[in-house]
Amino acid sequence: MSALPTAVSVPTLVEQARAGQPRAVARLISLVEDASPLLREVSALLVAHAGNAHVIGITGSPGVGKSTCTSALVTALRGTGRRVGVLAVDPSSPFSGGALLGDRVRMQDHATDGGVYIRSMASRGYLGGLAWATPQAVRVLDAAGCDVVLIETVGVGQSEIEVAATADTTLVLLAPGMGDGIQAAKAGILEIGDVYVVNKADRDGAAQVARDLRAMLALADRAGDVWTPPILKTVAAKSEGIDGVIEAIEAHHRWAQQSGELERLRLRRVRGEIEAIAVTAMRGRLADLHGHADLDRLAAAVIAGETDPYAAADIVVDTV
Amino acid sequence: MSALPTAVSVPTLVEQARAGQPRAVARLISLVEDASPLLREVSALLVAHAGNAHVIGITGSPGVGKSTCTSALVTALRGTGRRVGVLAVDPSSPFSGGALLGDRVRMQDHATDGGVYIRSMASRGYLGGLAWATPQAVRVLDAAGCDVVLIETVGVGQSEIEVAATADTTLVLLAPGMGDGIQAAKAGILEIGDVYVVNKADRDGAAQVARDLRAMLALADRAGDVWTPPILKTVAAKSEGIDGVIEAIEAHHRWAQQSGELERLRLRRVRGEIEAIAVTAMRGRLADLHGHADLDRLAAAVIAGETDPYAAADIVVDTV
Repeated sequence: MSALPTAVSVPTLVEQARAGQPRAVARLISLVEDASPLLREVSALLVAHAGNAHVIGITGSPGVGKSTCTSALVTALRGTGRRVGVLAVDPSSPFSGGALLGDRVRMQDHATDGGVYIRSMASRGYLGGLAWATPQAVRVLDAAGCDVVLIETVGVGQSEIEVAATADTTLVLLAPGMGDGIQAAKAGILEIGDVYVVNKADRDGAAQVARDLRAMLALADRAGDVWTPPILKTVAAKSEGIDGVIEAIEAHHRWAQQSGELERLRLRRVRGEIEAIAVTAMRGRLADLHGHADLDRLAAAVIAGETDPYAAADIVVDTV
Repeated sequence: MSALPTAVSVPTLVEQARAGQPRAVARLISLVEDASPLLREVSALLVAHAGNAHVIGITGSPGVGKSTCTSALVTALRGTGRRVGVLAVDPSSPFSGGALLGDRVRMQDHATDGGVYIRSMASRGYLGGLAWATPQAVRVLDAAGCDVVLIETVGVGQSEIEVAATADTTLVLLAPGMGDGIQAAKAGILEIGDVYVVNKADRDGAAQVARDLRAMLALADRAGDVWTPPILKTVAAKSEGIDGVIEAIEAHHRWAQQSGELERLRLRRVRGEIEAIAVTAMRGRLADLHGHADLDRLAAAVIAGETDPYAAADIVVDTV
């Protein structure tokens, strides 16, 4: 648990963050990362000031150029004067905390820009998983005055899809040479994108990727959708096509606002957040009441065939 | 919830599965997939007959050839007379249930072999996630007499790592052209492999992938490990190098048995399973007591800034 420097109270910290002080913003996100007990107070103070940011999720397989694309989007958004927050979330590695060097280098361009907050988060230490931590970190950036919050995830998987569910608009990146159509379908991306981007579009095969994607999207069960996700091409490393991506993102946002989809999405998201906090609290009670020794004894009995996991779980739940 | 045909009782089904009847095995795994209330009885009957199978996890980014490699391993294992179970677990797509056509085609070779059970599972519908479902499906195959159970996951992410934690031996696949070293590190695979396989080793860049991997494994924080994961090369599509993979898997298994690592691993795994069932039960109580209307009301109050997610979660927990 991170303690605050004794001189700084939570209300002061929240005021400083709302005034745009980067150190205060960073400290508040650290409280989220450390699952600090102070979060309860932080959350109560922030909630009235959040809800203004457009939250954009950026996902895709490793190697498609998510960091480069995120960086290019930040540059373009800053060019229009908007304040931007970036959360680079790495749900795939519970082991290595913090960002990898590669990303830090790529994001270095924005390090001295006071209108950009950049933060990496690993999933380590989140009792309730990313469903618990990501919305809280987004709320900090939102209340700190970010007009746009970009959530960049590493890889594609269940956790990444959870992260995508935190966004108002989800951008899915693909690139030539990253495996065939079936691989893309396997990655589970056909159902979650609001905007699709074929990056590295100057490479061989980009047109084919776009064609395959268009065909698969037509086949995917998206019946009932009234938004048709556009497929765009970019060369993020040269900032080519980025303006088009921003236009598509904004078009989706306007549609979501007008259709009521945004309201439904946000309601679902906050409901998920409440549930995640409640489950975390219940897990906490379970951990408090049950030392590992007891659970080890039950596990050993299951391995010996003396009891089964359900009967063992009954004992655990009853004690809670 | 799947009901059983009225004529078949759970004890009869378990007996049939233990006698190696594929339909009974398939039905029991369907009960796991459907989170059937009958699982409690199934579990109590199976637990005494499980614990003999060597459980092997196979993971790696989309496109490295996991399905092809799994199929080649099945052929090789069947050649030595062992009974083999295959679980293809897709945690990345909560939306599309079942296996994709590509896998079905690749696994078709084994469709008529009575010594092989093949089953795809998507994460859809698993209240407790894969941590809950995978060990139970493995237990069915184990009790049905499989000497080896292969768990193939799609993609690499937090969920895949959870799946890997269900295995006694984890195989991590890489391939040339799947992104640079940093991408591999990002994918979180450097900490979880017991055996590394560079597949598609007849392609350009395979030697470089192996070199990079060796260098990164040397840097990765695996201090305390006494097992040094080997790095092997295969061309799974031509069955080249597969015997070497099987030797390495078996060497790891012997080491794990002799060092006590296997026992520790299995204890940790069953402890995780008990916890997952307990948490699922508590979540169930939460869902029972709280209709969506209540939760929607609380979520709306949070969005309006009238309350915060923690206070809302308190109300939820207190009611439970």
